[in-house]
Amino acid sequence: MTNIKDLESYMKIALDLAKIRKGLTHPNPTVGAVIVKDGKIIGKGYHTKAGMPHAEREAIKDAKEKGHDLKGSTMFVTLEPCCHYGRTPPCTSAIIEEGISEVVIGALDQNPIVKGQGVNILKSHGIKVITGVLEKECEKINEDFFTYIKEKRPFVHLKVAQSFDGKIATKIGDSKWITSEKSRQFAHQLRKEASAILVGTNTALKDNPALTVRHVETEKQPARVLIDKKLKVPPTYNIYNNEAKTIVITSKLANQENLKRLSEKENVEIVFLDLDENEKFKIDDILNTLYEREIVHLLVEGGRGVITDLIKERKFDKISIFTAPLLIGNDGISWLGCIGIEKIQDSLKLRVEDFKVLDKDFYFECYPNAV
Amino acid sequence: MTNIKDLESYMKIALDLAKIRKGLTHPNPTVGAVIVKDGKIIGKGYHTKAGMPHAEREAIKDAKEKGHDLKGSTMFVTLEPCCHYGRTPPCTSAIIEEGISEVVIGALDQNPIVKGQGVNILKSHGIKVITGVLEKECEKINEDFFTYIKEKRPFVHLKVAQSFDGKIATKIGDSKWITSEKSRQFAHQLRKEASAILVGTNTALKDNPALTVRHVETEKQPARVLIDKKLKVPPTYNIYNNEAKTIVITSKLANQENLKRLSEKENVEIVFLDLDENEKFKIDDILNTLYEREIVHLLVEGGRGVITDLIKERKFDKISIFTAPLLIGNDGISWLGCIGIEKIQDSLKLRVEDFKVLDKDFYFECYPNAV
Repeated sequence: MTNIKDLESYMKIALDLAKIRKGLTHPNPTVGAVIVKDGKIIGKGYHTKAGMPHAEREAIKDAKEKGHDLKGSTMFVTLEPCCHYGRTPPCTSAIIEEGISEVVIGALDQNPIVKGQGVNILKSHGIKVITGVLEKECEKINEDFFTYIKEKRPFVHLKVAQSFDGKIATKIGDSKWITSEKSRQFAHQLRKEASAILVGTNTALKDNPALTVRHVETEKQPARVLIDKKLKVPPTYNIYNNEAKTIVITSKLANQENLKRLSEKENVEIVFLDLDENEKFKIDDILNTLYEREIVHLLVEGGRGVITDLIKERKFDKISIFTAPLLIGNDGISWLGCIGIEKIQDSLKLRVEDFKVLDKDFYFECYPNAV
Repeated sequence: MTNIKDLESYMKIALDLAKIRKGLTHPNPTVGAVIVKDGKIIGKGYHTKAGMPHAEREAIKDAKEKGHDLKGSTMFVTLEPCCHYGRTPPCTSAIIEEGISEVVIGALDQNPIVKGQGVNILKSHGIKVITGVLEKECEKINEDFFTYIKEKRPFVHLKVAQSFDGKIATKIGDSKWITSEKSRQFAHQLRKEASAILVGTNTALKDNPALTVRHVETEKQPARVLIDKKLKVPPTYNIYNNEAKTIVITSKLANQENLKRLSEKENVEIVFLDLDENEKFKIDDILNTLYEREIVHLLVEGGRGVITDLIKERKFDKISIFTAPLLIGNDGISWLGCIGIEKIQDSLKLRVEDFKVLDKDFYFECYPNAV
């Protein structure tokens, strides 16, 4: 198959299959696959979750269950097939065994240790391999996973709901609601796609958020991460309810009474980290801790201190900015604190990759690596 | 003629004719007219500038010069024809004299004293009148003029070029350039459509702007308005150059040396206003002064003090917000100062009527009267 339009239209179907499980496969990537023979789709599959078969095997199984012979068929897969034994046997073996004659790949595996190896093994078995079809889209769907693999830290995704003049609350702290219902619903979709949702002490105390996915269907709740060096947030607060797991990062300054009560809660994991000379956690320590717990995609919902630290240290990968058409004024609270910019040329440039109108609001999907 | 699509398509042509002179007719409105007979356009016209014939008379003249008889024709005009003697005789008389049998009107005159009178006179002479065709568009093109007539003050249009987090400069005042070249070019189009451009003392001193229309063609320069109670801005600054007229609003605190030198400049008008108990001008006094000078459309380009005062007193009609995809942080300078909002429900809601992507920037055309 060499017509680029055909290649892209089958890859699009594989991508749509992958998207069904977006956010639900961590720490694994999100992958979809389609098998085509004689111009017809004979099998479809996607990876459901860690421990379950990969998309390639699901598509092969689907085709075989429908009575198809896979010899001479073409497989479209959004991500380079794996060639190593993980929780499941390598997909390249299954492709070779079934006699599939051509494999069309969206994105290469971004893990430098294995990148291109799946392709090489397939080629060495006489299988025709085409790469880079809808590559950008196939890379984007696993932007979090690729960052996690390459940087050995979670993909850090900041979420901000601001007024037109950059404020997240009034001077007395009122913030309900700056954005529209439609924006808030979309924000729950972002939660669903995350492995964990992080807030700081003040946000937990002030807003008492449960940080659970609501308003959109989901079969799992992301973990909650609370940064609380003095363990000030009472165990009765919503962030500790039984609806999801909570990782609380604290220090030697932890309130002992709260510590005791939290230790008794099954859904709470308490992590002690060192404080630096300013009695602050190191960002890298927090991200390491979460990486060790296989948190691929970390959605940071506030507050201002955490977000400012992450931006100042350039330890973020994406910012979702919801902007509501209202003005609060400079006595209100800004979402971004001081970051020491003196010249406009040194300001933090963002690349806006997607833009949506959500009722009266505007949504900007931004990335830090603008040229 | 009763087919609504026909009515709208001819009115659209009249609107496009009107737009040719947008911003150049003040203190008169912007108007276009088309005359149709037997399904053909036989005359077109628009109002060029104050003192020149109105659009209706220009269209009649055009048709007659081409040898057409206007009896039984239909005139499309974006604004209700005038019925009073101003600098020119009433248009209703010309329409009646020429035997035009039908008049289709976009917007009614918003001056409460004459609204609907043109329609009544035409009807009383047996002319069929249809009103409200593309009414919203026809009203919008004269939004500034209508505010000027009804409120007896200039239409106040604020222009802001901000970062994503609501800043207009870094902590050391650097602001060149937050927005892209395309945004800045569009900003010159906004200048062209204004009767005058206002800045405060600090902006004039810091940025030394000429406030002239550049990068877009124009045959006139808007007046410049400088608020400078101590007359601090030196007469050698660009705002006083010979490229346009400058109205400087000052007070008894004026620097005498600068006052003397400015009095000698032909293009400068010096206006003295009283200061209130806080040594500030009253917004209403400034707007009155400009109304008396037939400033229909006032574009306010800064600084933060002037813009905050206008917003606090709800004395503005439109905000053009250019947002660039970059972050400056809270040590930067916000475009909007403190406006005393305590609850989100009391925040200043904006209605976004138009939205453009300008290179990397986003442009929002906002109005204050959102529901």
